[in-house]
Amino acid sequence: MGSLEDARFEGELENGVGLEELEEELDAASGSGSGPEATRTIEEAVRVLLQGLGEDHEREGLRRTPLRVAKAFREGTRGYRQNVKDIVQGALFPEAGLDNGIGYAGGAGGLVVVREINLFSYCESCLLPFSVQCHVGYVPSGQRVVGLSKLSRVADVFAKRLQDPQRLSDDICAALQNSINPAGVAIALQCRHIQFPEALSCNPNPKHPCKSEMQGWVRASVCSSSGVLEVNSFWTDFLALLKFRGINLEGCSKNCFPVQSWCPSRSLEAPLCNGHSTKNPNNGKVSSKPGPTHASMVAAVTSILYSLGEDPMRKELIGTPYRYVQWLMKFKSSNLDLKMNGFNLGKLTLHKKTGDVVNSQSQIHSVLNLPFCSQCEHHLLPFHGVVHIGYFDEEEGKGIERSIFQSMVHYYGCKLQVQERLTRQIAEAVHHVFCRGVMVVVEANHICMISRGIEKGGSSTATIAVMGQFSTDPAAKALFLQTISNNTASGG
Amino acid sequence: MGSLEDARFEGELENGVGLEELEEELDAASGSGSGPEATRTIEEAVRVLLQGLGEDHEREGLRRTPLRVAKAFREGTRGYRQNVKDIVQGALFPEAGLDNGIGYAGGAGGLVVVREINLFSYCESCLLPFSVQCHVGYVPSGQRVVGLSKLSRVADVFAKRLQDPQRLSDDICAALQNSINPAGVAIALQCRHIQFPEALSCNPNPKHPCKSEMQGWVRASVCSSSGVLEVNSFWTDFLALLKFRGINLEGCSKNCFPVQSWCPSRSLEAPLCNGHSTKNPNNGKVSSKPGPTHASMVAAVTSILYSLGEDPMRKELIGTPYRYVQWLMKFKSSNLDLKMNGFNLGKLTLHKKTGDVVNSQSQIHSVLNLPFCSQCEHHLLPFHGVVHIGYFDEEEGKGIERSIFQSMVHYYGCKLQVQERLTRQIAEAVHHVFCRGVMVVVEANHICMISRGIEKGGSSTATIAVMGQFSTDPAAKALFLQTISNNTASGG
Repeated sequence: MGSLEDARFEGELENGVGLEELEEELDAASGSGSGPEATRTIEEAVRVLLQGLGEDHEREGLRRTPLRVAKAFREGTRGYRQNVKDIVQGALFPEAGLDNGIGYAGGAGGLVVVREINLFSYCESCLLPFSVQCHVGYVPSGQRVVGLSKLSRVADVFAKRLQDPQRLSDDICAALQNSINPAGVAIALQCRHIQFPEALSCNPNPKHPCKSEMQGWVRASVCSSSGVLEVNSFWTDFLALLKFRGINLEGCSKNCFPVQSWCPSRSLEAPLCNGHSTKNPNNGKVSSKPGPTHASMVAAVTSILYSLGEDPMRKELIGTPYRYVQWLMKFKSSNLDLKMNGFNLGKLTLHKKTGDVVNSQSQIHSVLNLPFCSQCEHHLLPFHGVVHIGYFDEEEGKGIERSIFQSMVHYYGCKLQVQERLTRQIAEAVHHVFCRGVMVVVEANHICMISRGIEKGGSSTATIAVMGQFSTDPAAKALFLQTISNNTASGG
Repeated sequence: MGSLEDARFEGELENGVGLEELEEELDAASGSGSGPEATRTIEEAVRVLLQGLGEDHEREGLRRTPLRVAKAFREGTRGYRQNVKDIVQGALFPEAGLDNGIGYAGGAGGLVVVREINLFSYCESCLLPFSVQCHVGYVPSGQRVVGLSKLSRVADVFAKRLQDPQRLSDDICAALQNSINPAGVAIALQCRHIQFPEALSCNPNPKHPCKSEMQGWVRASVCSSSGVLEVNSFWTDFLALLKFRGINLEGCSKNCFPVQSWCPSRSLEAPLCNGHSTKNPNNGKVSSKPGPTHASMVAAVTSILYSLGEDPMRKELIGTPYRYVQWLMKFKSSNLDLKMNGFNLGKLTLHKKTGDVVNSQSQIHSVLNLPFCSQCEHHLLPFHGVVHIGYFDEEEGKGIERSIFQSMVHYYGCKLQVQERLTRQIAEAVHHVFCRGVMVVVEANHICMISRGIEKGGSSTATIAVMGQFSTDPAAKALFLQTISNNTASGG
């Protein structure tokens, strides 16, 4: 897709809005890969994916999901349709420097650093968004400086593409060097990728408690530099200014984090690009066998890549459709209900529990911080966090194993969900066993809230379900909430 | 201005872009107060303000400032042209609740809370942006839930208007109650307004060291509730879920922070709405006398309010143009140079300094954390933070008073500036006295980076100037940077 040369472009960018509109207009004018057409193609592909997941794409919660996903993908890759020169142009300001030989400052060689710019990008390995804290430094030359906001604007152009951390860093560095032509540029990125739920399974088995790795993130710090910032003394200044904000990147070097070890999808079995495989490509973890459905899903994702303006045959993208499908299939709809699926809640044996937080006076058991990862049915993006379960014991001091609660949480998490329903379903399941009263609190980060248009990165969502005695006894409810407060670092 | 009823609207909002474009189109179609026309009116008004500040609005750094300011104002008040129903419509999803009498959860009465949504709004008292951390809770009813992202989207509609914290909170609460029709809504806002530099003066006087209040913010916490969230037990749950994130709002009650005590501009002398005054309205702090210039600036700001779709005669806005002009005039261009302005740097007496951080081996004096507030000439918005000055002493152990450095910082800060130039100018001034070597580090938060389209709230900018020995001796530079690191909490 062509760059946007229209004179209106720069003005609109000033406020960061109006872009998609304009772009679609221009796309339409150019007649190739137009915005509305790309959106329709992606919508169609998402319907194929929903069918592959065993879902009815006409049900209320999913009816607009294809459009939402298409818009999010287009928006999340708008960087392909932006031009750095247009952004920087008109924001280069003459600024007098120092007389020769005195030192450096202002327009002449004094380091300028913007720290802690929050961005997000899309992982080219698995198509999931990852968050980026970006630090940009440059040394002005030619007695001119660039408007500070343009540094984050240019960084965002490259974040809004399918990326891996090191290339993102290199791209930003090269673009700033070429467009501003300063004495040098320094980029440091601290990236955070959602951890894959390796033990996430739709076949919960109380004998194999799931691991708790879902709270973790995969982290990578990368950096790039050009010009005088490749010289040790300037680079040291850059790191020193980051350190003022508690950011310690000493020891971070170029290419310290190759793509293979970054994205958790890479640790899955080596994929084949078109979904045909002689081995079971699902690694035995999901119920569907490879077949026509799987192949059509992989083909659908390939068409999404193409619609975003990418080359699905670019070597870094070869296995991406396969990996994305593999991720999605972890959340395949299952018609098996929990009871038929390995254990009968009604027949569970209660044990004297010592590991739980038990308030002996109130007989409230608290099972806290059960990690989960689920998939938001409105956006096909993960939400993840922790579940806290409180219940009144039926027989004094007796409860069930934490691992069984964890299996329940996984069972209800590993499908297309909304947090409110997940909370209710867990409460209802526990209520089958503990009829006196159950309370469930779910705290989650929604990747859709982080990476969609609103980009509300720091926000987190909490939901509550109360059953039985908890719904009539405010003191019991308050006691359980206080127990969570006392036992969690800072929630989700 | 009319609300946007166009069918395209909702789809565009999905990704939060395209709005301004669309809005201007619709404005133009409706023929009243059109976007381009409003932008032109504001641009013209900003030129009047720049002239009133003694600036040449044709100089390079200011040439596009009127357009930038106009777009920022329009963008920052886009909420006047948005319609909540359009946003919520299509994002209400059926969600089964619990059987009657069991409890509440999911679609039936289980509390849902989204915490820590970062927004910014514009203060109706002084027209400066203030930042908002917004927490939204609601209790679903009618077995339907709203898409989580819509909660922050609706909050943003009211943030993007001229506001005070309590009305903002009430507006969001009422809008969610009316559009979603849930069992109840809870809103809590933690707001932060830039502190006014009371002691900021263009007449630095070494005998009256300026106070250090610029690092501070004025903070206000407010809340609102409706329906069942007015009942104590639900409200307690809401506060408990905020507490999980370390947010303690116990004791925060409705109307706890009346507008008069919130905005620092309110503590200035009572303004007259048209700029005519029998007393000196500048409180003796700025050099210009009230007169035709001042009156035309107040009229210009009044026309801006009108162009934003506001009623300049609304009682909360009566004194706003006057207060905004009063704020701007703190940064009036001055032709007096530092030397003529109260003290002659060349004739300063050096004293044996004991209060400084002095590295006796290297003879580097460090004067750290000098607060400042300046005005970004590209956006007419404040940037503020701290200045660190390092210098080699001329006579062993002898330096000058911290208050003199503070006056210097204020002198170079109180005008339309860019951070790079401020850094250089301070370095050059200090270098007049300490010729062996000077190093200046400025750390600042730019309100323009926080409140403009990019909304990169957490970012901060650091700049460095080095002169004399510091420019040739990397070890000296590193030593000074280390001194800052050791003596600051976390920089800017």
